[in-house]
Amino acid sequence: MTAHASQTETSVNQIDDVVAYMAGLGQAARVAATQMRRAVTGDKNRALLAMAEHLQRRRSEILEANAADLARGRASGLEAALLDRLALNDARIDAMIEGLEQVAALPDPVGEIEGLRYRPSGIQVGQMRVPLGVIGIIYESRPNVTMEAASLCLKSGNASILRGGSEARDSNAAIAACIRDGLRDAGLPETAVQVVATTDRAAVGQLIAMPEYVDVIIPRGGKSLIERISREARVPVIKHLDGVCHVYIDATADPEKALAIAVNAKTHRYGTCNTMETLLVDAPVAEALLPRLAQAYAAHGVELRGCERSRAILDDIAAASEEDWYAEYLAPVLAVRVVDGMEAAIEHIERYGSHHTDAIVTEDYGLARRFMAEVDSSSVMVNASTRFADGFEYGLGAEIGISTDKLHARGPVGLEGLTTRKYVVLGDGQVRQ
Amino acid sequence: MTAHASQTETSVNQIDDVVAYMAGLGQAARVAATQMRRAVTGDKNRALLAMAEHLQRRRSEILEANAADLARGRASGLEAALLDRLALNDARIDAMIEGLEQVAALPDPVGEIEGLRYRPSGIQVGQMRVPLGVIGIIYESRPNVTMEAASLCLKSGNASILRGGSEARDSNAAIAACIRDGLRDAGLPETAVQVVATTDRAAVGQLIAMPEYVDVIIPRGGKSLIERISREARVPVIKHLDGVCHVYIDATADPEKALAIAVNAKTHRYGTCNTMETLLVDAPVAEALLPRLAQAYAAHGVELRGCERSRAILDDIAAASEEDWYAEYLAPVLAVRVVDGMEAAIEHIERYGSHHTDAIVTEDYGLARRFMAEVDSSSVMVNASTRFADGFEYGLGAEIGISTDKLHARGPVGLEGLTTRKYVVLGDGQVRQ
Repeated sequence: MTAHASQTETSVNQIDDVVAYMAGLGQAARVAATQMRRAVTGDKNRALLAMAEHLQRRRSEILEANAADLARGRASGLEAALLDRLALNDARIDAMIEGLEQVAALPDPVGEIEGLRYRPSGIQVGQMRVPLGVIGIIYESRPNVTMEAASLCLKSGNASILRGGSEARDSNAAIAACIRDGLRDAGLPETAVQVVATTDRAAVGQLIAMPEYVDVIIPRGGKSLIERISREARVPVIKHLDGVCHVYIDATADPEKALAIAVNAKTHRYGTCNTMETLLVDAPVAEALLPRLAQAYAAHGVELRGCERSRAILDDIAAASEEDWYAEYLAPVLAVRVVDGMEAAIEHIERYGSHHTDAIVTEDYGLARRFMAEVDSSSVMVNASTRFADGFEYGLGAEIGISTDKLHARGPVGLEGLTTRKYVVLGDGQVRQ
Repeated sequence: MTAHASQTETSVNQIDDVVAYMAGLGQAARVAATQMRRAVTGDKNRALLAMAEHLQRRRSEILEANAADLARGRASGLEAALLDRLALNDARIDAMIEGLEQVAALPDPVGEIEGLRYRPSGIQVGQMRVPLGVIGIIYESRPNVTMEAASLCLKSGNASILRGGSEARDSNAAIAACIRDGLRDAGLPETAVQVVATTDRAAVGQLIAMPEYVDVIIPRGGKSLIERISREARVPVIKHLDGVCHVYIDATADPEKALAIAVNAKTHRYGTCNTMETLLVDAPVAEALLPRLAQAYAAHGVELRGCERSRAILDDIAAASEEDWYAEYLAPVLAVRVVDGMEAAIEHIERYGSHHTDAIVTEDYGLARRFMAEVDSSSVMVNASTRFADGFEYGLGAEIGISTDKLHARGPVGLEGLTTRKYVVLGDGQVRQ
């Protein structure tokens, strides 16, 4: 274990009273939020670029801290996938630096006034975009989330309290030092971003139960973490649950587009929430399309599980059970169903889907228009791969996560989702009659 | 008691299993929400105008039902203010009819697509405004809220479940009949608006605990009702708590504007949430302004409670205690404090206010600009009376309430606050590289 890690160890052990410690972070964040609300764009950008410089300069320190986390992880039998997420290297630090530069280059959403109009009374009324206040982020093993979350909360004028996974504690402490120094360089309060320094699990319970200090919680991680936090939180939560995404190929689809989209939506990446999990094929084209699709999937090693009608066409695939229609595989497995037209497809999506991202492939104008209006998902697509449901692809410039909630933010959440709007009224002495 | 009221009585008594009854309403609402999402603007407007016609035609029936409620209320010793809220008359029915016509005339927010732009990949991405789904509204004695809530939820494409006060049950049942018939006339599902037909208090507990059927709860009523619902709800709540509103008169204010605004903000109406409760006066102008203000307030019978410095100028007013700075009087009482400049005023507002509506009176450009940016309230005003914080004055055309929450909707909530936005993606076969 390195000297750096030992230091962190000490500070971790010093926190005996987690409730008091978290309340202290909360109070400091509330004060910082007031100052951050007033922070000008230039200072926020200077802080982001200074953080990037600190990352650059302290590369070896960060990699050493990360090595300590990895060693501890290996010793405690952490599985390979988690170790991979935990690992930092030069490329990942480069990506963090690039991320900071990108966020600095994004337009500042704070202060933008929309719809300022004169009213009959003579007052002007508009809505000004303002920070939410204090944001709590709870995440798991990836230490680069620390910098990502810090940068987005900072740019949107919020104070933040970040609680990463205990397995990444030394890496997070090293990154936290870069954040702190960057804030100081730009003359912003160091408490504008606070990384929780205890690995005590009670810290999470406290963070989600301080409505007086925290305005919103954003959990990032596995479904069970998010469900638990949503259930127990006493502050609003912006969350992401399932991604059971569908592609529906209508009889009016261009077959080549249908094939390209259906293959890309499944095989581009398996573990992402916007990956297609169920393919719905309109009956009149099933016989022509399913064998070609099956061949393409076989080439990618994707296992198919089908309904009776699709198995009548593809006789060597397994039968899908009722559970398969609900499944978020996050793996090279795909459920396939033959349906009778768009109405039946929408019914299936409504019943089994998770309202995340659903696509239709069609050349029919009326069907495209109806599918867009009637499918109640955070992203609804016509003739495009579900894999496009992403903050960068949508042009948000950054993404703190994808919300499957309906209120406040729905779909990919960028800087705007970390703000809210207040009304501003400009008058010249007007009174209400 | 009228024949109509007896009928309602019977149906009320028939509901033995409140849990099953509420689940039934929830299921029906979920189905109706799917149909309402597709409802075209013309049908929604036709339903609203048909409801207005039914109100017109069944005026005497409604007034009879209301008379039964009033008789029961008087017999059970309901206080005068509540009886006044409960009472319907021709003027109030006229207002309900006019309200329906106004909502029918409002633009339909559903389906509006904002920001549709081409991305480098060739897809077009925009955000489409869509209904929230199922909205539960819980309110107290005023039966006209039934029609108001029904019309706003309907126009915004939502299904709704309305739970009024038990003291208004016959009036609400009569209004519910007009709603149902109006929906049927327009060919919309009758379950698009459901008025809870039991006065059992357990119905509220059920309504706020069915996330599978209800997307959002909007409570309207006293603070204790709203606090209880927020605490116990298992679905998101859009709520209104306190309105501790401030007017700050800076030394740079035009004295005549300051007087007009300070008097109007307090005396235009006492019981409303946007009424000023604390007046902050900048020290250099306190001596000149306070006596003139005191005279104007005295003419309106407003009692003043002041800080030490204001009492040194107005020697006959009572001393304000610490509690007075937090108080939402909703009465002809005003707390008055002399402060040293805008910073001190903002500190006071931050510490004691409720983030509802706060105003500055100043002729100084820089102060106005800073006050707008730095005060974290749902409405921030320059040189205008706080009484303008209202959906109609802001041009929303209608108002379901004023939100003091930060997420989703902040300030007056109109049709737009009852909708959310999903992403729509238009492609031509694009796949992710």
